[in-house]
Amino acid sequence: MTNLSIPYDATFRIPNQNIEFLVYGYGSDGMVSASKDLMKITGTYTNAYVQGYFQYDSKKSGGITISNMRFSKKPVRSTYYIEKAGLVVCTKDSYLKNLRMLEKIKNKGVFLLNTAKTPDEVLTMMSAHDKKILQNRNIQMFLIDASKIAKENGLDGKISTIMETLIFKLGKIIDFSFATSKIKENLAVKFAHKSGNLVNKNIKAMEGSLGNLIPVKIPFVDYDDSLENKKDFFEMISSMEGDELPVSSFIKMPDGSFPAGTSKLNKTNSSDSAPCFIKENCISCNLCSLVCPHAVVRPFLLDEKEEMDAPEAVRRNLISANLKDQELKFTIGVSLPDCTGCSLCSEVCPGKKGAKALVMKAKEELIADRKEEEYQYLFEEVKEKNVMPTNTVKGSQFKTPKFFFPGACAGCGETPYLKLLSQLFGERMVVANATGCSSIYGASASSIPYNIPWANSLFEDNAEFGYGMKIADETLKKRITILIQKNMKEIKKSEQEIYKAYVKEINSDTANALMEVIDHTKIDELLKLKDFILPRSYWMIGGDGWAYDIGYSGIDHVLANKENVNILVLDTEVYSNTGGQVSKSTQVGAVAKFASTGKKTAKKDLTKMALAYPHVYVATISLGANPAQAIKVLKEAEAYHGPSIIIAYAPCIAQGIIKGMKNSMQEEKEATESGYFPLFHYHPEKEEFSLDSKADFSKYEEFITGEDRYRSLKKITKDAEHLLTENKNQAEKRYSYYEELSKTNE
Amino acid sequence: MTNLSIPYDATFRIPNQNIEFLVYGYGSDGMVSASKDLMKITGTYTNAYVQGYFQYDSKKSGGITISNMRFSKKPVRSTYYIEKAGLVVCTKDSYLKNLRMLEKIKNKGVFLLNTAKTPDEVLTMMSAHDKKILQNRNIQMFLIDASKIAKENGLDGKISTIMETLIFKLGKIIDFSFATSKIKENLAVKFAHKSGNLVNKNIKAMEGSLGNLIPVKIPFVDYDDSLENKKDFFEMISSMEGDELPVSSFIKMPDGSFPAGTSKLNKTNSSDSAPCFIKENCISCNLCSLVCPHAVVRPFLLDEKEEMDAPEAVRRNLISANLKDQELKFTIGVSLPDCTGCSLCSEVCPGKKGAKALVMKAKEELIADRKEEEYQYLFEEVKEKNVMPTNTVKGSQFKTPKFFFPGACAGCGETPYLKLLSQLFGERMVVANATGCSSIYGASASSIPYNIPWANSLFEDNAEFGYGMKIADETLKKRITILIQKNMKEIKKSEQEIYKAYVKEINSDTANALMEVIDHTKIDELLKLKDFILPRSYWMIGGDGWAYDIGYSGIDHVLANKENVNILVLDTEVYSNTGGQVSKSTQVGAVAKFASTGKKTAKKDLTKMALAYPHVYVATISLGANPAQAIKVLKEAEAYHGPSIIIAYAPCIAQGIIKGMKNSMQEEKEATESGYFPLFHYHPEKEEFSLDSKADFSKYEEFITGEDRYRSLKKITKDAEHLLTENKNQAEKRYSYYEELSKTNE
Repeated sequence: MTNLSIPYDATFRIPNQNIEFLVYGYGSDGMVSASKDLMKITGTYTNAYVQGYFQYDSKKSGGITISNMRFSKKPVRSTYYIEKAGLVVCTKDSYLKNLRMLEKIKNKGVFLLNTAKTPDEVLTMMSAHDKKILQNRNIQMFLIDASKIAKENGLDGKISTIMETLIFKLGKIIDFSFATSKIKENLAVKFAHKSGNLVNKNIKAMEGSLGNLIPVKIPFVDYDDSLENKKDFFEMISSMEGDELPVSSFIKMPDGSFPAGTSKLNKTNSSDSAPCFIKENCISCNLCSLVCPHAVVRPFLLDEKEEMDAPEAVRRNLISANLKDQELKFTIGVSLPDCTGCSLCSEVCPGKKGAKALVMKAKEELIADRKEEEYQYLFEEVKEKNVMPTNTVKGSQFKTPKFFFPGACAGCGETPYLKLLSQLFGERMVVANATGCSSIYGASASSIPYNIPWANSLFEDNAEFGYGMKIADETLKKRITILIQKNMKEIKKSEQEIYKAYVKEINSDTANALMEVIDHTKIDELLKLKDFILPRSYWMIGGDGWAYDIGYSGIDHVLANKENVNILVLDTEVYSNTGGQVSKSTQVGAVAKFASTGKKTAKKDLTKMALAYPHVYVATISLGANPAQAIKVLKEAEAYHGPSIIIAYAPCIAQGIIKGMKNSMQEEKEATESGYFPLFHYHPEKEEFSLDSKADFSKYEEFITGEDRYRSLKKITKDAEHLLTENKNQAEKRYSYYEELSKTNE
Repeated sequence: MTNLSIPYDATFRIPNQNIEFLVYGYGSDGMVSASKDLMKITGTYTNAYVQGYFQYDSKKSGGITISNMRFSKKPVRSTYYIEKAGLVVCTKDSYLKNLRMLEKIKNKGVFLLNTAKTPDEVLTMMSAHDKKILQNRNIQMFLIDASKIAKENGLDGKISTIMETLIFKLGKIIDFSFATSKIKENLAVKFAHKSGNLVNKNIKAMEGSLGNLIPVKIPFVDYDDSLENKKDFFEMISSMEGDELPVSSFIKMPDGSFPAGTSKLNKTNSSDSAPCFIKENCISCNLCSLVCPHAVVRPFLLDEKEEMDAPEAVRRNLISANLKDQELKFTIGVSLPDCTGCSLCSEVCPGKKGAKALVMKAKEELIADRKEEEYQYLFEEVKEKNVMPTNTVKGSQFKTPKFFFPGACAGCGETPYLKLLSQLFGERMVVANATGCSSIYGASASSIPYNIPWANSLFEDNAEFGYGMKIADETLKKRITILIQKNMKEIKKSEQEIYKAYVKEINSDTANALMEVIDHTKIDELLKLKDFILPRSYWMIGGDGWAYDIGYSGIDHVLANKENVNILVLDTEVYSNTGGQVSKSTQVGAVAKFASTGKKTAKKDLTKMALAYPHVYVATISLGANPAQAIKVLKEAEAYHGPSIIIAYAPCIAQGIIKGMKNSMQEEKEATESGYFPLFHYHPEKEEFSLDSKADFSKYEEFITGEDRYRSLKKITKDAEHLLTENKNQAEKRYSYYEELSKTNE
């Protein structure tokens, strides 16, 4: 909330009644910031008191934002959601299906919708209930194709200035020509240091917007809404109506547990484009699937029956799987409504002779090509095939991920690691997740991407939390073996060997054998512990804010002990979730919040600290640099009977990769090749330190100046040269330290 | 409190009225444990409900203990101090002066005192007030010289069995011969694994005790107690009467501050012996002073006037100081009542031709030799002389310590470091002290050994706490310089240069110059900040429980930043204060609480972790191994303009040094020589790692089996061999890691 009372120009006077606007936007459309601009201009040049109250859902990207704006002659003290606005604006027509926007417009109010659709198409999309409201309240409705205007003016996707202009126009809050002059002044300040002639492009887009407003006439019909469906539990939450759910709807989850894998129920449709599979160019490497941050692009293997049952749209895209033992067909499926359009899959696709097997296309085009039919069949009907081990990129991607469709940013560098983990160990994996991006996209109720046991406690205690889970599991397994031993007489003679084998050693073979017969048991208490018979793989997951700073003492404690647990650090070198604050992982010279003139201290060497414990498996991985090493390391770490810690390099929007997040895999590769992020693994049983990457420090400067966090330093401080040299020195020292360690094996 | 209701033998029945005993002991006389034995026997073999409630003062050694014991037919539920006991026992006659023991005896009760004094001497010691009580309440009083009986039976100082026997005799709680048979049974169990024929010796001592009870007849006199002194604030607290202080007595310290250096007001007189200075054998090396854990043994330099004014007892012990520029006399003074009799001074004294300059003698003998007169003059009257720099052992010890007479154990390995620190940096030092032994003996109200700014916050936040002090100091200094710059006109022309010099650079010269003139200032706000003009030296001090475990994340945070602060870790490799629990500093194989079969994991390598930060000064020191290196390191670390961490090896009673704490300096030496605790220092500006000790691993086994924590392992677990080999392996790896680092300088 901002409550401004800035000196104003008395020419513009606010009317006696309050003015209220509601703007529905989505994560990356800039509408929150446009709303704030609008409030600032109004607050500065009128006698209005201004209040803004902003709602967000918890997704990292593609989420809903709602700007509640209130202008009043009297100070606005209370903060509440606007229930009856004079103007409601929506930048995404898919919201018409879910959000109750129309209900929030007052009589004779205005509704402005950004859409490429015609008035007829829009009216067809709308529910009878909403159309009744339009009619009964005499609402004026306008359409604008802001995306098209933006595109025409070289502002692909940047619609906020257009929308801000139209809000001033339709909201009639202050003199329109005065308002536009102030918007232009703002633009000049905002883009002063940016290239691309953004000021002029925006001004042109503003000017183009007015002539393109399309008024919508509501035909007089007696709309019947009596048969319209009510929303279910998950729809209510994803439509931001969760507050209205009755307590009784939670009755099945009194312990705070929540159904898993529900992200597939929540289609954000946040992108206008998605990859299209071109089978002729595919070499079945499965890299596209490996890198997809949202588990949207996946290889499928179809047997004969599945091929026969498949819709034609699928059948025409099949190629031979080329397997020795089985006659299966291969294809790549894309879950269209879950795709964020990041283009990573297309970027990494090696294709054939320079021609890609995945090409980004407009979703409309894909839908016309029956791609919706395709993904529904592939993702819902086709069964997983066990054709090869998971110790290769290709093999790992035939496993159905148990982490899919997270609300992570397009091109997220973290989620591919989690998806891969869920493919390697999903069947026995339990996750303790630290607070941060990974907990937000990890459980953005009601949209849960994990389909395995997962929990988040606090930022600061995640290692301890996961450690407690492991100890509890050990204790319960001990109780199971004691129960078996004490009650051996109660067990059928024919099954005793199975029980004895389990007591002797708990592994997946003995446990699976026991699971086969456990339901026959007469030992009630044993049956109650059935869930704990199988061996589990415990993972403590979080970002560098957790691992290097806030949760480090817990990590240190876990590493100091000898329990068989695994720690995965998604290292973006910055607090990503809260907006890019400096962490101990941030490197010297990097610009971040709280380090606005570049960080002055070196990156904390968490791996060196972990290596101070002789019994810890320590490694660094980077999917973009060496996916095979990453898979090998994850498998080794998990198999090792002691604590392991793996630091995974993860690009993030907060780093400001100049080439964009669609190149984040390439960025990972260059980070390693330049010596910025070397790869290694240390196996404590073998006492073997292996340096898994080479470093060409001549590429160092090119790499770091490819990211805004370093590139902007020279504009900010005279100390830039010194800090960046220090940065490189640190990297060289780090590399040679690892090089020395690797020599001790020889 | 223990509330036992164990099956009993009906032959022994407790009377209807409650039986209440009070036993006044001191830290190491075993009376708490004897009281518990007595309660256990009574609870087991009678129908009594038994309650024990134990009071301690907060000193680590030489402190008061009070056992409140209650035996009743009915369950005892409330816990309260006994106000009217049937039997009061006191093991230390000096308590007669301070503690109100007599007031706590009921009519016709019994008072038993352990003393070497005759009845007449004891009566002379007692206040008129106490003697009136003896008379008016018809109290039976007995003396026993338990220390003499113990000594005669080869149990030097171990009086608890004798006292327990006499409590059964005089307390008449159960059949006496039955009680003694049970005491004997207990002895057999207690000393089963110990050598030295302790069972028989104790039995003989028990038998000898009965015949030596001396009844005291109270002569009938009209005692006049009207002129007796009332206790002051500090006496009230040290007599355990602090609860009775009125709130008004705290009125001068509303912010929680407490007068410093008050330990000299609280004479514990906990030892019967102390060192005697023999000037003929002294080479003036000052080692005795360096190692004294209580700042009790100190060198003094007397000028001509001081020599003339000195009592004869001092004059006869003076030798020439042999200084080039000044004609001064040298002597060693011993603050008799503060000496704990640890003998460290005498052990380390090199003497001349095998004859020591410090020899332990009975205090009685020393007092007879007018040593009381001597220490009072030396410690109170003789001024500090600035004759040589503090960068040698000898030079450092001529500085008056600003840490003295702490309530630490006899032979404590920690306090010599703190005393030395206070000699090196006392004038500008500020201490943030973590919870632990060092905070207990560091501020055992009302007995405060520090005479410098000192504070304790929590166990877990000490590094942050000290860091905050430093930041606050920086901020106030910035405010001072801004005030000066803004108000330059208000400053006298003649003094402006002094102010300008301070603003330009704050160091001890510019600050001292400013202090000379600051009182002339007309700038009121500046005058208020006078306390913050001088540069300060910030020290965060604590044990390994703090630094390796509970406070580690704070230490990591401080090291990750670049403030000029110093961390001193007093590493006993165990939680000393709470009784010897395992910490991350405990080495593999060491037996400790929570590691009763030897610790299974390696000692955390805190120095290696600190070295992961390129800008941190990191060192290990050991006074017994190399005092010159310790002084050099402390000076370098303090002078370095960034964070420093120094790990100081500190023997502790919890380690079970077989040769006893009087050999703790020798133990420190052997720890380093054997490679168990190598010395090094790393200077980040010079980027120079220096290994400061050699390691002869052939001495390793001898060293570790010289301590009970390792020696006892073989009795406890079959795994001993393996764990101790692992221990040595770790030490060898640690040493060769440091060896490698030191080579990188070459």
